[in-house]
Amino acid sequence: MPQTLSRVDGDRVLADLHALRAIGAYKTGVHKPTFSEPHMRSLRWLADQLPDAGLDATIDGIGNVLGSSSRPGPKLLAGSHLESQNYAGWLDGPLGVIYALEAARVINCDPDVHGAVEVAAWCDEEGHFGHFLGSRSWVGALTEADIDAARDRSSGRTMREALRDVGLAGRPRLTVERGRHIGYLEAHIEQGDRLERSALAIGVVTSIVGIWQYRISFTGEQNHAGTTRMAIRKDAGLALARFCVAIDDRFPALCGPRTVWTTGRITLDPGAPSIIPGLAEMLFQIRDDDPAVIEGLEQTLRTMAAEVTAQGRCSVTVERLRTGTPAGMNAGFQDAIEAASVAFAGGRSMRMPSAAGHDAQILSTVMPAGMLFVPSIGGISHHVLENTCDADIVTGAQVFVETCRRLLEE
Amino acid sequence: MPQTLSRVDGDRVLADLHALRAIGAYKTGVHKPTFSEPHMRSLRWLADQLPDAGLDATIDGIGNVLGSSSRPGPKLLAGSHLESQNYAGWLDGPLGVIYALEAARVINCDPDVHGAVEVAAWCDEEGHFGHFLGSRSWVGALTEADIDAARDRSSGRTMREALRDVGLAGRPRLTVERGRHIGYLEAHIEQGDRLERSALAIGVVTSIVGIWQYRISFTGEQNHAGTTRMAIRKDAGLALARFCVAIDDRFPALCGPRTVWTTGRITLDPGAPSIIPGLAEMLFQIRDDDPAVIEGLEQTLRTMAAEVTAQGRCSVTVERLRTGTPAGMNAGFQDAIEAASVAFAGGRSMRMPSAAGHDAQILSTVMPAGMLFVPSIGGISHHVLENTCDADIVTGAQVFVETCRRLLEE
Repeated sequence: MPQTLSRVDGDRVLADLHALRAIGAYKTGVHKPTFSEPHMRSLRWLADQLPDAGLDATIDGIGNVLGSSSRPGPKLLAGSHLESQNYAGWLDGPLGVIYALEAARVINCDPDVHGAVEVAAWCDEEGHFGHFLGSRSWVGALTEADIDAARDRSSGRTMREALRDVGLAGRPRLTVERGRHIGYLEAHIEQGDRLERSALAIGVVTSIVGIWQYRISFTGEQNHAGTTRMAIRKDAGLALARFCVAIDDRFPALCGPRTVWTTGRITLDPGAPSIIPGLAEMLFQIRDDDPAVIEGLEQTLRTMAAEVTAQGRCSVTVERLRTGTPAGMNAGFQDAIEAASVAFAGGRSMRMPSAAGHDAQILSTVMPAGMLFVPSIGGISHHVLENTCDADIVTGAQVFVETCRRLLEE
Repeated sequence: MPQTLSRVDGDRVLADLHALRAIGAYKTGVHKPTFSEPHMRSLRWLADQLPDAGLDATIDGIGNVLGSSSRPGPKLLAGSHLESQNYAGWLDGPLGVIYALEAARVINCDPDVHGAVEVAAWCDEEGHFGHFLGSRSWVGALTEADIDAARDRSSGRTMREALRDVGLAGRPRLTVERGRHIGYLEAHIEQGDRLERSALAIGVVTSIVGIWQYRISFTGEQNHAGTTRMAIRKDAGLALARFCVAIDDRFPALCGPRTVWTTGRITLDPGAPSIIPGLAEMLFQIRDDDPAVIEGLEQTLRTMAAEVTAQGRCSVTVERLRTGTPAGMNAGFQDAIEAASVAFAGGRSMRMPSAAGHDAQILSTVMPAGMLFVPSIGGISHHVLENTCDADIVTGAQVFVETCRRLLEE
């Protein structure tokens, strides 16, 4: 009777997710940037729920919410994040937090289970102020100088100001207690369409791909958009457009089966309609779980840049801003998720890498870590249309809680 | 002895240009946006010089500086503008103003000349707040509602606020007095390299080309830059890049000999490195002196947009923001400039259209208008490196003053 073992309350899970959706609602999604009023309200909402799951709640000096148990026995840490991208979806983050909360509610009061699930909501996974600031703080990888330097990418407000404004400045930052946890488990929406296309319910994450990020800069010659003949122009913006198209033409022959690349931002300088841009810049990202593939693509970028520069009209530089190392998920955790999927999802699971970054990659540097995915309708995410059907949400919760139980029992 | 007839003081012209260059100096150029402190200081500097040229100075309610003469006889209006593009060159505008000032100094005190040169510095030719607001105000083509709606394109400050801040709010706006002037003459740097390439000193402007401006918008689907497979992406930014390249590939076969086109600004939305842009937008300009050429190119743009939309991945719309009608320069003015070039520049002149917009196109709607160009080194303009050699500046001044004299004597 696996259903009776889990005692997951699907209606409660859905009600909690909708409660968080109502805080900072925007169209069909939410707008909860880190340290915004609705984000802070979401943190307090979570802290208020934790005692019913047998947990003592703390909001620490970086905005992490942590629920700790005084129950004897092994502890499993579980969670995700509560802030959102700007004007984005309602499940990205909250799903994993509510699954963790549900697991704690079910397991921490169960006299048949030895140990407890502890809950975490990591601050700023979405990177408004930096990369994984909350989870990096907790694993001890964030210095005070890092915090001094962090700024909101939209408003430019410093993290120090934000922490002061929301009343967190001066609070201690909690950090990992070595040996306390048997590991970390996180659930998330897939944010892609592989599960949906395969009619599966659960993704067993094998690794979290690395993200390599580049600034590609083009230098031409700023000039008058009326008087400068086409033949003598050194248009940095046009060079950039040609570069984007060349990437898209060349990469498919060189990439791996799951490589993705994106130009997310373009800036022309000075950006006036009557001036030929003398400078242009693009932020470019490549993601893959095989560093060798990335190395080949980066070499191609640099070769292309040298080719354009050699033509003499515009010079191109490629600067790597971020180097991502793929994070492997623990094999025992993968097996536990798969076994729980057999019990609660009819075995409708597949193993897959995560093409998105998640706090689990940070946690994996200090303890075994695992992740499970539920399907995203149409593969849409980082958008107000992001959604997962109720049945998949509930199935995911059952598999998640069962995974927690199996890991604690091992 | 043409030199003795003109009595142009080349050192005085250069000293005046350098005096204006020192106000708001930035690197080798200037930064004098409309209604900035250095712009206002430049207006007052000019107003202070006008009495020595026999002119009464007024700064009016839109920021035009006008010097009027009480001398009997025909009046020729001459001038240009004093504000600059942001972080741009020192001669774009001031050259024509100082030539006009020099012409007034030479001619208005000459007992052998009947009539006078009156001087104008038109406000905001560079379009910080709109299109030719100063000269349009003077010819009666600017309403109070136009001023209400005008905003600084960089800061967003309204024109009303700016006028109040600089103390011009409430002053009357001066307007054209029908029949007072025989016409308008303006000198300007060429901002292109045709004179330099031909080793000529003077460009006799035949017409000022029209500027057609478009907003081209791309709608795809915003999504996650890690989890969305390349095959299903609807990347609005990539569609924009391909469109830019397609324009550059197709237009050369369809354009006229002097057509130019420019993408001056690109915006991706939301503009985050980890999000596939769902919207993208470019500001696109075409300039030519033949409206039929423009019409063909605009039709090509619309056909290309329909083709991309029909492919089903992203939809493209083309919106015309600005329709430019070419302005013909007066034939008698062209002849006078050419004759003055024979006298003072060894006949080293050529007739040419202006590919840049100038206040003369606005003045040409109410009186005969003419323009002359001096060479730009390397064709560079709208850039701090903009320059003209001293000898060409002085030759231009001599030709300009001689042209004024000939026009007044006709």
